[in-house]
Amino acid sequence: MIRLVVVGSVAYDAIETPYGTRDRALGGSASYFSYAASFFTKVGLVGIVGKDFDNHLLDPHVARGIDLTGLVRDEKRDSFFWRGRYEGDMNSAQTLEVRLNVLGDFKPQLPASYRSAPFLFLANSHPASQASALSQMKGKVFSCADSMNLWISNELGALRELLRRVDGFFCNDGEARMLSGNANLIYSGRRIMELGPRFITMKKGEHGAILFSHDGLVGIPGFPVEKVVDPTGAGDSFAGGFMGSLARSGKSDLPALKDALVDGTAMASFAVEGFGLERFYTLTEKDIEERRSRIIEYMPGAR
Amino acid sequence: MIRLVVVGSVAYDAIETPYGTRDRALGGSASYFSYAASFFTKVGLVGIVGKDFDNHLLDPHVARGIDLTGLVRDEKRDSFFWRGRYEGDMNSAQTLEVRLNVLGDFKPQLPASYRSAPFLFLANSHPASQASALSQMKGKVFSCADSMNLWISNELGALRELLRRVDGFFCNDGEARMLSGNANLIYSGRRIMELGPRFITMKKGEHGAILFSHDGLVGIPGFPVEKVVDPTGAGDSFAGGFMGSLARSGKSDLPALKDALVDGTAMASFAVEGFGLERFYTLTEKDIEERRSRIIEYMPGAR
Repeated sequence: MIRLVVVGSVAYDAIETPYGTRDRALGGSASYFSYAASFFTKVGLVGIVGKDFDNHLLDPHVARGIDLTGLVRDEKRDSFFWRGRYEGDMNSAQTLEVRLNVLGDFKPQLPASYRSAPFLFLANSHPASQASALSQMKGKVFSCADSMNLWISNELGALRELLRRVDGFFCNDGEARMLSGNANLIYSGRRIMELGPRFITMKKGEHGAILFSHDGLVGIPGFPVEKVVDPTGAGDSFAGGFMGSLARSGKSDLPALKDALVDGTAMASFAVEGFGLERFYTLTEKDIEERRSRIIEYMPGAR
Repeated sequence: MIRLVVVGSVAYDAIETPYGTRDRALGGSASYFSYAASFFTKVGLVGIVGKDFDNHLLDPHVARGIDLTGLVRDEKRDSFFWRGRYEGDMNSAQTLEVRLNVLGDFKPQLPASYRSAPFLFLANSHPASQASALSQMKGKVFSCADSMNLWISNELGALRELLRRVDGFFCNDGEARMLSGNANLIYSGRRIMELGPRFITMKKGEHGAILFSHDGLVGIPGFPVEKVVDPTGAGDSFAGGFMGSLARSGKSDLPALKDALVDGTAMASFAVEGFGLERFYTLTEKDIEERRSRIIEYMPGAR
């Protein structure tokens, strides 16, 4: 039984970082999210690939039990392609090239077997497309959405409509400032809460994350990683750990959200240790449990 | 008996923030540090003011029992003056004007009654001047120093010499990157540790701080403050709470350093809630204890 559905992208990424390059690595929000979440719960993926896609790239996903019934293949066009570069503090990518290809007019269709899952994650996409996926779910679903600066600028109406319908919203610090029109992150988070979500997870790259909820705020520092090999997918891996954690516990109260922050931080910290999803492929549940402990010991409260 | 000596500046500050302005507020590293530390321990201040200085500005310091024997007055020149402005995320000041005045050739002299204090904080100043103050201490002293980009650029030799002698070093993220020549903060902190200190406290403004020590790393998020009225002195207030906490416990092991991070975070969070030292003047020990609890509850580890 699928507990967590992710609707997002499966892509080819070309990546440059100070530690090397990859020309055609598996990328995309749903690839990272589903793999990270698979350590916590049963995940179903909704996405699209093109005629150029090598299906064997998803063998590790299949091996982790991720359901790919919702992944469609378009034999007329190529897969979504992204090329980016990281420099300096590596907190944000410089996008060098985007080819939407199959993603251009993708209308996500959720398989019947996904529609009664209790948890749903809508990775970054046009907010109307996210809303359409949400509408396909049956019964009570705990839903969260991610977004990006493009939709805040160009589709604010549709995004606000979506925010009234989802339980949680994931954004980064820059997007939060854009949405609130204010530079203070605490002020920004509180204003976004007023748009409807029950909680917001504001991601701050190396500086960790802040969770806003009606029951209180929670802050978690970023886990210290001396060698950030490739930050691509860190945010989606964070969300995968976070949502996987909630789906496993079946809870979304403040203690569950705190736990989810630790799990999200753990998965993001692994994601950046290798190019693309490479670090994930050697990851064990013991590694994750150890990282969780180290994250908790890293904070002064653990005395 | 004085437990903690601070050598630093006492200044007039002119401040502009989105919440208002102050023309001649009490400022300076030693003013903030000593007041913050006075909630934890007995503090002695070493500094200099000029002929224009209104001594009554330090009445609140006297009321908190801060020893001002080490504060000298130069009747020929004016006090150190700084004018700055904060905008946007308010994480760093734009310096509009600096008049060194009395601070230009100040050679700190520690009163005999200060010289056997067990804890010493050398606020930002020329590293040779900091070293001279350190040399005046008798017996075993636990010493920490702050610095700034100017000395990293122009007096790196003297700064490295100082780093070999002090127990702890306070820097901000930008200074850490300058010192290491690398953008990764974890890498940077570890390289600075190799220069000699037993620990480093890396301050990151609203993003909190990272402590590097031979016993491990500790990260603390910034306390969420929705209305940052004036960030001036936040770093010195952090250091005052941190060092005051160590001086009170008389310890400097990892649990004591973790405690000190919480106390430093608390004092910095109060400092930014008002212009200059204004918020401090109404602060009670109960306020500090409550803030400490809220800081610990703010992190996921406190479950």
